[in-house]
Amino acid sequence: MNAPTIEGRARVVIEGLRPEVDGGRFPIKRTVGETVRVEVDAFTDGHDAVRCMLLHRRAGDDVWERVPMRALGNDRWRGEFAVGAPGRHEYTVNAWIDPFETWRHDLARREDPADVQLALRIGEALVADAARAAPAEVATRLKALADAISGASDWREGRKAGTDEALAALMREHAEPRFVSRYDHVLTVVVEPERARFSSWYEFFPRSAGEPDATHGTFADCERRLPEVAAMGFDVVYLPPIHPIGTLFRKGPNNTLTAGPEDPGSPWAIGSAGGGHKAVHPALGTIDDFRRLVERARSLGIDIALDIAFQCAPDHPYVESHPEWFRWRPDGTVQYAENPPKKYQDIYPFEFECDEWRALWAELLSVVEFWVDQGVRVFRVDNPHTKPFALWEWLIAQVKARTPDTIFLSEAFTRPRLMHRLAKAGFSQSYTYFAWRNTRTELTEYFTELAQAASREYFRPNLWPNTPDILPEFLQFGGRPAFQLRVALAATLGASYGIYGPAFELMEHEAREPGSEEYLDSEKYEIRRWDRGRPDSLRDYIARLNRIRRDNPALHGDWSLRFHAVDNERLLCFSKAAEDDDNTLVVVANLDPHHVQSGWVELPLEEFGIAADQPFQAHDLLSGSRFLWQGARNFVQLDPAASPVHIFRVRRRLRTERDFDYFL
Amino acid sequence: MNAPTIEGRARVVIEGLRPEVDGGRFPIKRTVGETVRVEVDAFTDGHDAVRCMLLHRRAGDDVWERVPMRALGNDRWRGEFAVGAPGRHEYTVNAWIDPFETWRHDLARREDPADVQLALRIGEALVADAARAAPAEVATRLKALADAISGASDWREGRKAGTDEALAALMREHAEPRFVSRYDHVLTVVVEPERARFSSWYEFFPRSAGEPDATHGTFADCERRLPEVAAMGFDVVYLPPIHPIGTLFRKGPNNTLTAGPEDPGSPWAIGSAGGGHKAVHPALGTIDDFRRLVERARSLGIDIALDIAFQCAPDHPYVESHPEWFRWRPDGTVQYAENPPKKYQDIYPFEFECDEWRALWAELLSVVEFWVDQGVRVFRVDNPHTKPFALWEWLIAQVKARTPDTIFLSEAFTRPRLMHRLAKAGFSQSYTYFAWRNTRTELTEYFTELAQAASREYFRPNLWPNTPDILPEFLQFGGRPAFQLRVALAATLGASYGIYGPAFELMEHEAREPGSEEYLDSEKYEIRRWDRGRPDSLRDYIARLNRIRRDNPALHGDWSLRFHAVDNERLLCFSKAAEDDDNTLVVVANLDPHHVQSGWVELPLEEFGIAADQPFQAHDLLSGSRFLWQGARNFVQLDPAASPVHIFRVRRRLRTERDFDYFL
Repeated sequence: MNAPTIEGRARVVIEGLRPEVDGGRFPIKRTVGETVRVEVDAFTDGHDAVRCMLLHRRAGDDVWERVPMRALGNDRWRGEFAVGAPGRHEYTVNAWIDPFETWRHDLARREDPADVQLALRIGEALVADAARAAPAEVATRLKALADAISGASDWREGRKAGTDEALAALMREHAEPRFVSRYDHVLTVVVEPERARFSSWYEFFPRSAGEPDATHGTFADCERRLPEVAAMGFDVVYLPPIHPIGTLFRKGPNNTLTAGPEDPGSPWAIGSAGGGHKAVHPALGTIDDFRRLVERARSLGIDIALDIAFQCAPDHPYVESHPEWFRWRPDGTVQYAENPPKKYQDIYPFEFECDEWRALWAELLSVVEFWVDQGVRVFRVDNPHTKPFALWEWLIAQVKARTPDTIFLSEAFTRPRLMHRLAKAGFSQSYTYFAWRNTRTELTEYFTELAQAASREYFRPNLWPNTPDILPEFLQFGGRPAFQLRVALAATLGASYGIYGPAFELMEHEAREPGSEEYLDSEKYEIRRWDRGRPDSLRDYIARLNRIRRDNPALHGDWSLRFHAVDNERLLCFSKAAEDDDNTLVVVANLDPHHVQSGWVELPLEEFGIAADQPFQAHDLLSGSRFLWQGARNFVQLDPAASPVHIFRVRRRLRTERDFDYFL
Repeated sequence: MNAPTIEGRARVVIEGLRPEVDGGRFPIKRTVGETVRVEVDAFTDGHDAVRCMLLHRRAGDDVWERVPMRALGNDRWRGEFAVGAPGRHEYTVNAWIDPFETWRHDLARREDPADVQLALRIGEALVADAARAAPAEVATRLKALADAISGASDWREGRKAGTDEALAALMREHAEPRFVSRYDHVLTVVVEPERARFSSWYEFFPRSAGEPDATHGTFADCERRLPEVAAMGFDVVYLPPIHPIGTLFRKGPNNTLTAGPEDPGSPWAIGSAGGGHKAVHPALGTIDDFRRLVERARSLGIDIALDIAFQCAPDHPYVESHPEWFRWRPDGTVQYAENPPKKYQDIYPFEFECDEWRALWAELLSVVEFWVDQGVRVFRVDNPHTKPFALWEWLIAQVKARTPDTIFLSEAFTRPRLMHRLAKAGFSQSYTYFAWRNTRTELTEYFTELAQAASREYFRPNLWPNTPDILPEFLQFGGRPAFQLRVALAATLGASYGIYGPAFELMEHEAREPGSEEYLDSEKYEIRRWDRGRPDSLRDYIARLNRIRRDNPALHGDWSLRFHAVDNERLLCFSKAAEDDDNTLVVVANLDPHHVQSGWVELPLEEFGIAADQPFQAHDLLSGSRFLWQGARNFVQLDPAASPVHIFRVRRRLRTERDFDYFL
């Protein structure tokens, strides 16, 4: 026989704790000020009273904060705590049997005088035990309450004294728990700035930001663009790589294999004799110029997001200084990126299986730290799914240990498991399949998953209707309504979204070739001169969307999303709500950019707190129109040529005759 | 910066392994000969080829068996292994990047001659590496295949030699994996005898087994009863406690507080001056008589199951020899069982929070081991949910370490979490809520959960239409059809089921009082004389059910259960199948014991392997009737007075004119 190795008297079982990712292997995520709602199963054998305590603390603190959990029935318990500052916090659950509460529960039910008298003596002993361990003042109060039991005139009085609520409260507070069970894991929540959850991104190429007569935009030009971007309502400006661009095998316009002497090359071909990942492209300016851009942006409430692309052009300094970080072929050349038969000779990937992988990881970390030191707090990571997952988990943890308010966006358009693993590994936000979800079924299924599945604890979507690599077919052929629809969906379905401009607001829609999603004359390979002042620009439309986003807390999170029935498959209807702020929005979108569509939407009025017989106002925040609705079913018609989307704020309270003084 | 503490080059991620219970905290369960189908997500960054290997072994073995897993798509992999002997087995998953397979995949796609030539040199090096580490014979074959590459007449020939399947197979087998990732947990499967999954229980009171003129039945009487029970088709005979019965506070007939001198008392009030949990009631016979009963049963293919009730009558020897195992009250008496205001003064529970809990656990284990040593392999544990869960986990593991073919049934009719925790802790089978599930919705929801939810990996239901404590209302008022219906449902919905007889087959249906589920004149408190030969006994009906169970592998497991649509709410239709044995059963039950019910059932013919235009035979194994059906919808009518249930065997193959020699 093997003797038991546990404390067999800790009889409470604790299991089924949520939220928990992969048995605690990965943290959950929250932003500053958000709440963690913890639920757990806790129960004991027999019928003894169970107490259940949620413990939480900042990682590194010695002392746990304690939050009593409340029983939900069916052995489920719930408790909440708010997270106050960026960084890692921990939580777990304790539970134990409360002998006094058990005794008190039974006492109240006892009816036999002798039985009560005996029970009272047991209770007095429990109180005396607690008094011995309690502070003097508490001990005095406990003794007084115990005296009330022993001094009772008869068994009924004694039972009353024993079940006294003041005594119970004191005992709950001061009786030392015995045989405390602890949940198997201490879990972690990574707390990030609010912008990790709610953010509006605008991507543009600095080199195209110059005045029309300039050959190459500069950081100073970018500074001059910022007020315009701020006026559109964006709060993150994401710049493609700003480093020196390789000259060997440089790509020409439209991704051709040979570049002319004036062709600027792709910014993702990082590194040349002029420097690598810690240098800036000389035509853009200096590091000081860049720091000034970051500061200027911050003064406008904007974060500059940098691109992290861990790959090298053939003339990147690393190739000479650290040949051990690359894969060498028998002919003495470095293995370039390839997907046979395709070759990407302008890109050398790192060899992550090299002997010197630790030094490589350390150097890559130092790249991010370098830009953190320049004031950057937001990073968009290029193709993270082609570097080891373990690298990201380690690197992001290292950066956040020093600078907890950093934000990382994962640019992985790949298979679901990989995207999820990157999110678990620490990325604050993730690109999604949004660009390819167009029909009602597609949108409903995908966004229900994003908003409701357990993965929402770690996977925060960021929706992009376009990127420099992705011009979806829907935008190529849907005209202006398609652009309006897709940006409105992104801005309302997603608490975080972004566009690649000015291509987006200028409705750039020509693909390089039929069937391709690549832009014709892509800015990746050439400098573009955008006519940003064009009268048909969607600039004002987008500004209105972003203003609606800012003003309506319902759009600051993803989890409240619910889809609602419409009897026309081309119409999409969903709502988001911020309960604490009495803010409920209903979005109705015409998914067909070519035709007027109409139908009856069915709203869950009870969830909105509206009685079926109560009229309510549907105020379209986009157009300003106000509709008076009543009942769950209401008619909607959307002409894409006018506006393909309604964003209704539902206002419960309407003025009636009762609101006038003279009515009563 | 904290240097990485892991092997950062082990780039394959392994997660989402199923089956796994609570992150590996508890084992899954199988019976001898069953298969464990393991699925896992395994993927790497980038596009390298992944290999995934299922590892399994008997616990304690040094060496793992290896089963290559196959890719299912979407980064999911699957592999299976069979478990051969009772005991603990272990499983986990390894995965790694296969550089040769990656190289070979790319090589097949290369089209540039220079590119191919260079690639061939890389491949030759990979083969040479493998040859160096391989056994001589393999090395020779590898070298020959490498020579075919280097000696190729041109690049196309070289590419062909490099992608040769024989070479790939050798490399898969012999190339030493580098940077192997291991799944986070080694998981356990507890393998039990087949009877843990498929069993037919019959409970009777030995003391009522005597001849009509005897006062108290004996083990010898039980022996004489066995052929009858075997003829009914049962393979487990469960006896209520067989120990000396307490005399202090002994209960009289119908649970009255005062027993007369002739009243035998409740067998669950264990222990008297005559002995405790390791003794037998003197009126039943001796330990030797009991051993003979066990042996005689075994010769008939029957296991004798004993009751384990860890509680004591006030005159149990433990009270005097181990007062430290009980809770003492201030008046010097032992705390009896109670649920105020109810008192159970004939029962002393153990005080599991006592200082001497380890000694108590050891003694309780020794009780089970004592009966194992008498030949008992099956135990029905009384009220396990009123003893610590940790006790059971430890105790069952200890017993099974010495005697892996033991089976434990948990008699816990309590809240779901507790019942599940007991199953996780090691109970082979569990009583269920079956007795209180009567309507189609209730049955469908509950049994879909039991058959399909992840909990099926550890929770094996055992269905009882009645027990000495439970005479459900449905049986009190439904007459003979109700008994037929409930036993047929138990025998077909559950791979394991049981009845308490002869009360069941004699359709005993009178409750002690209206609204009660207790039997009038319960055998728990008195000796009953059953007229077992009564002509209306359901003995033959039950025998037929058990024969159908034995003959049809579809009924030997719970997981294949599927419910099917019927257009009459009072009819229940479900199927079970054993694919390997071409055995599909369809059960249609009339849930209304009072009226004829009919309706159209809708069968998933495709799942049954039957074409829509193909006639098939529905052979009612209960009545012997055969119906010729075609198409998914078929009409069924059930008269409860005749038989409330069809158990159809679906026979795909019908003889047609094509079966005759002269047809062609």
